[in-house]
Amino acid sequence: MNVDEKYFKIISKRERAIFEGAITMGAIFHQFIGTPVSSRTAEGLEKAMMNAMELQPCIKEVQVKINSEMLEQLKNEYQYVSLSGDMLDVKVFSEYDGNLAIIRMKFIEELHYPLIYVEEVQ
Amino acid sequence: MNVDEKYFKIISKRERAIFEGAITMGAIFHQFIGTPVSSRTAEGLEKAMMNAMELQPCIKEVQVKINSEMLEQLKNEYQYVSLSGDMLDVKVFSEYDGNLAIIRMKFIEELHYPLIYVEEVQ
Amino acid sequence: MNVDEKYFKIISKRERAIFEGAITMGAIFHQFIGTPVSSRTAEGLEKAMMNAMELQPCIKEVQVKINSEMLEQLKNEYQYVSLSGDMLDVKVFSEYDGNLAIIRMKFIEELHYPLIYVEEVQ
Amino acid sequence: MNVDEKYFKIISKRERAIFEGAITMGAIFHQFIGTPVSSRTAEGLEKAMMNAMELQPCIKEVQVKINSEMLEQLKNEYQYVSLSGDMLDVKVFSEYDGNLAIIRMKFIEELHYPLIYVEEVQ
Repeated sequence: MNVDEKYFKIISKRERAIFEGAITMGAIFHQFIGTPVSSRTAEGLEKAMMNAMELQPCIKEVQVKINSEMLEQLKNEYQYVSLSGDMLDVKVFSEYDGNLAIIRMKFIEELHYPLIYVEEVQ
Repeated sequence: MNVDEKYFKIISKRERAIFEGAITMGAIFHQFIGTPVSSRTAEGLEKAMMNAMELQPCIKEVQVKINSEMLEQLKNEYQYVSLSGDMLDVKVFSEYDGNLAIIRMKFIEELHYPLIYVEEVQ
Repeated sequence: MNVDEKYFKIISKRERAIFEGAITMGAIFHQFIGTPVSSRTAEGLEKAMMNAMELQPCIKEVQVKINSEMLEQLKNEYQYVSLSGDMLDVKVFSEYDGNLAIIRMKFIEELHYPLIYVEEVQ
Repeated sequence: MNVDEKYFKIISKRERAIFEGAITMGAIFHQFIGTPVSSRTAEGLEKAMMNAMELQPCIKEVQVKINSEMLEQLKNEYQYVSLSGDMLDVKVFSEYDGNLAIIRMKFIEELHYPLIYVEEVQ
């Protein structure tokens, strides 16, 4: 079966790149939010998040940055927190047939909200 | 701040509708997969999934169907299972400024995969 | 197969009640953290969380309270947030062969941490 | 504040070790089920799961094994799957004040269920 022809013929190649990147961004947030994390484990978790999400269709690269300042300022005695949206800065590079979409998730202070938006389309 | 102007000016209105629907579809899968569910609780869970996801930007309506046959054929003695991708049929109606995108997630037997695709754009 | 005899003979009935309640508490936190929630949808989400978790072995009852004050003070323009540990107050009633354990999760301000502890054993 | 005295005085040290191990086992299942995984990424994901869960109170060590045969037999064209309970074999070593509890999660074919049980208490 040609999946692209059967299920994606009503959208353009550019739209497909945007579409797949957006799915992955929704996925990464809702899969990993809540995971225990500390200064010591953050880098390994970032890498696992990237590797998992790069498996999804059309995803060329994922970059994940967990805010290390927030981890260092931990006020509880357990020395770790649950990963939350305000700690994440994520970029997803999604490509379909030569069309590249760069999707970004970033906590926007002014909005009090981890916004997901399209940073660039080539 | 005008979020749309600042963060979304490089994509069209039609692309925005597709984008927001796709985020929500990635989110619904990765948030709820793993939830304990049975014939008795499926309807309430469907409703909670819909209500949660209709809160997201541009989402007009979400329809969730958990495969009831699979729940009735439960082979374990505990009479419930963890929600999995092959049990889900989901439609997300995403609208931005008059442009409607209908996104679908359905388990495609031939692919052994819960495919997310664009069913319609108006 | 007698599961209890095969897998649980090294712990007492009281310990079994505590054990099953604790599993369910870890489960409820990590399954639902991150779910979009608002004043309008909180009650339905609480109910779905209870119903899902009451399916697990030995769980007689689950009570979930999402902090409504926090939902009403929402500062972002999207009028919803991702469910987080500081918003939750949960009680799990776990019973095995006449032994009841009441497990509680509550955000303890002094600890900056959603503590899970044993409130009562009968 | 002495958390142990305030919140855990009604259970024994042995029960505390069982309790904390059980929480972590419920957590690991419901946090990571659904994560995309392949033969190539499994080892990194196992490590991230261990590191995250070893942060929790009383957890000395976590061992995670994702079934590699199941990953190699992948029948879909995407070459990855969502992590599910039948793929997991997990051991949690939980210790409180000299009392060690070893909690295990394993998919039991006969039960069609990923059973969590107490393997050993010392």
